[in-house]
Amino acid sequence: MSATMPPSDRVRVRRKPERGHYDRATVDAIIDGAIVGHVGFVLDDHPYVIPTAIWRQGDRLYWHGSSASRMLRATAGARVCITVDRIDALVLARSGFDHSVDYHSAVILGVAHLVVDETEKLAALEAFVERLYPGRWATLRPPRPKELKATTVLWTELSEASAKIRDIGAHDEPGDETWPTWAGTIPLTTVLGDPIPDPFVPDGLVAPAVRLGVAAD
Amino acid sequence: MSATMPPSDRVRVRRKPERGHYDRATVDAIIDGAIVGHVGFVLDDHPYVIPTAIWRQGDRLYWHGSSASRMLRATAGARVCITVDRIDALVLARSGFDHSVDYHSAVILGVAHLVVDETEKLAALEAFVERLYPGRWATLRPPRPKELKATTVLWTELSEASAKIRDIGAHDEPGDETWPTWAGTIPLTTVLGDPIPDPFVPDGLVAPAVRLGVAAD
Repeated sequence: MSATMPPSDRVRVRRKPERGHYDRATVDAIIDGAIVGHVGFVLDDHPYVIPTAIWRQGDRLYWHGSSASRMLRATAGARVCITVDRIDALVLARSGFDHSVDYHSAVILGVAHLVVDETEKLAALEAFVERLYPGRWATLRPPRPKELKATTVLWTELSEASAKIRDIGAHDEPGDETWPTWAGTIPLTTVLGDPIPDPFVPDGLVAPAVRLGVAAD
Repeated sequence: MSATMPPSDRVRVRRKPERGHYDRATVDAIIDGAIVGHVGFVLDDHPYVIPTAIWRQGDRLYWHGSSASRMLRATAGARVCITVDRIDALVLARSGFDHSVDYHSAVILGVAHLVVDETEKLAALEAFVERLYPGRWATLRPPRPKELKATTVLWTELSEASAKIRDIGAHDEPGDETWPTWAGTIPLTTVLGDPIPDPFVPDGLVAPAVRLGVAAD
């Protein structure tokens, strides 16, 4: 992917092109800062959108699920759109039509590939756990063959992707600035609460640190 | 919609059917607690997923955007899937395969209808602003005809929808409870930060209250 040119016309940002970004670093940072993406696929001519955990390894975007899942069965080998996004702030202006949100979003188009090799599947799942909870994989009860079999892992290329970012805050039509109502931004943040141990956690064992928003190759 | 039966087979929750909910109150509460939904549509045989603000008025789910938007042009009259969801907590177990998230999600399938009538369009946009910022519409600079024309409003029925909820926290395979690693839940919450006024807001004018998560008819 080039830093300035869209990799395809269908991921080119048309509305508000100044918000479009085509460099991998920008796309990767949005993916690496998210826990969930929205996977779109077509089944019997109808679109479906399923939220699911996503993670990146180099040039690949991964997701996974139960091998019995309709979503995963339907998407293997099929065209997918994976959208990853967050709202950074509510934006209030003096005209209703200038209200907005500041956001970061990435749209990835591709074909879903199934991870067939068991070693590769296990490595992908380890990367998924380590991405959110660094150091945790080695502390877990080791995987069993039936767990691995019951889990399907899919990936798509990060070659046809674009990012769209709005970060300009409030913006009024010329002349509206003196209209006597409040305008500005209200930040939105996702925060982690205090960990709640299950009843079997012995005293003194602390919850792992959660890593959000770190680009890692 | 019935409280217990899926309105169609394609929105029936197959994986983990105990997590499925088919009553409108549950679906409505998930929609009313969200700012953004993910709209899926098909264009030239490829799925697309676009995040966009959504709101509900009675039996209809609305979204809007620029009349120049490809997404809105492509979806008018077409089949759509709108998915609305939030993560409530990260769930950590003693096997990597039992890690999960607690979540609320709603999937709505339908056809996108264009709001043609200008009065109806204006009422829908007022409902959108009032849903997030009660009392704000009356304080705004009144709409101009060209603003209304440049804005497209769409809706779909809430007749074919289902909700899926996971709220059981950590859950291990039998025998894993004594494995010596931390397990439990880490809550995730979206919080509003302190409002940041733009440079034209006079002293003493305070930001409007934001209403999230209130079911309103």
